[in-house]
Amino acid sequence: MKSADPIQRLVLELGRLPGIGERSATRLAFHIIRETHGGKQGATLAEDLAAALVDVVKSVGLCTRCRNLSLESECRICSDPQRDKSTMCVVESVQDLRALEGTGAFKGRYHVLHGALAPLDGIGPDDLRLDELIERLRADLYTEVVLATNADVEGDVTALYLARLIRPLDIKVTRLASGIPLGGELEYIDSATLGRALSDRREF
Amino acid sequence: MKSADPIQRLVLELGRLPGIGERSATRLAFHIIRETHGGKQGATLAEDLAAALVDVVKSVGLCTRCRNLSLESECRICSDPQRDKSTMCVVESVQDLRALEGTGAFKGRYHVLHGALAPLDGIGPDDLRLDELIERLRADLYTEVVLATNADVEGDVTALYLARLIRPLDIKVTRLASGIPLGGELEYIDSATLGRALSDRREF
Repeated sequence: MKSADPIQRLVLELGRLPGIGERSATRLAFHIIRETHGGKQGATLAEDLAAALVDVVKSVGLCTRCRNLSLESECRICSDPQRDKSTMCVVESVQDLRALEGTGAFKGRYHVLHGALAPLDGIGPDDLRLDELIERLRADLYTEVVLATNADVEGDVTALYLARLIRPLDIKVTRLASGIPLGGELEYIDSATLGRALSDRREF
Repeated sequence: MKSADPIQRLVLELGRLPGIGERSATRLAFHIIRETHGGKQGATLAEDLAAALVDVVKSVGLCTRCRNLSLESECRICSDPQRDKSTMCVVESVQDLRALEGTGAFKGRYHVLHGALAPLDGIGPDDLRLDELIERLRADLYTEVVLATNADVEGDVTALYLARLIRPLDIKVTRLASGIPLGGELEYIDSATLGRALSDRREF
């Protein structure tokens, strides 16, 4: 139900943003309204923000191949002929994709799941469209899939599930290494990470 | 300058909100975009929020009398015949007005300054349109003005300045009481407040 009061309505909509409670939403709404009446020249924050929101809805879609965010039907990474077509990196989110791209260490293509398996929250293979991922692996000539899901329970479960689906296709399945972060001091590392670093120790 | 990338543009606009840094803005933008592609029915958060912003710009203005936010040319308080026309409460912001209304203890009218005097930040009497306030006091039959500016330096300076302007009009000028908040324990009250509570002590 929409509130009849425009101010209350703006507070409600701002309150739908993650991490913004009613108090913050009220503060933001009043800031936006005050700025609207500030008498400064040009478009107001409210107008600029509204336009940016409408533009994002209109122009940002998902890459038909990898489900990365894209302004075209195929994203910049998928349509880049320089990228290695034999390696695919599976990530939970577009933010994760961007973080990995930031390293410059991966030259292959991606596949974005937009989530992780979480049976307790009712998120299953269909929600992540894993069939599309498998279809893609069948159709193209991938030789390795890097499972770059988070190092938490959901991420591990998703990686395990995917590994079982992908191995029959005769494609190498790898997982991001877990261990002590660079610069990390042993004293302050949680015991689960330390345990993993120990069991995954490498020859020096 | 507008960014050509709609996602980057949304991040920039969200980053203009108070207390939202680039990292938070990015997180909010991705949440909004993800929600847009969530495939749920009905309008998305992005569309609802954009509509609410446009609506606020279009329909919320300032009361021509007291500069409270209003959907009409005169706000609900100014146009309410039940309100006491002889008492005016001067506040810094619409939020302060709402807080005072929440107490139910004030039955008069308001005047919203939309700020406080802050010479160091270049905010002077003209920015607060103090001439309009004085004009209003001259034109109507006010017998008391309650200065409900904040109990900080700017609020005190503003109250002092206003008191000097208003007194020649033969109108009683009062100020909100300062002291220990109800339920406050002396042990935890800052010394400035405690000092004020002591100097402003009342007969029991």
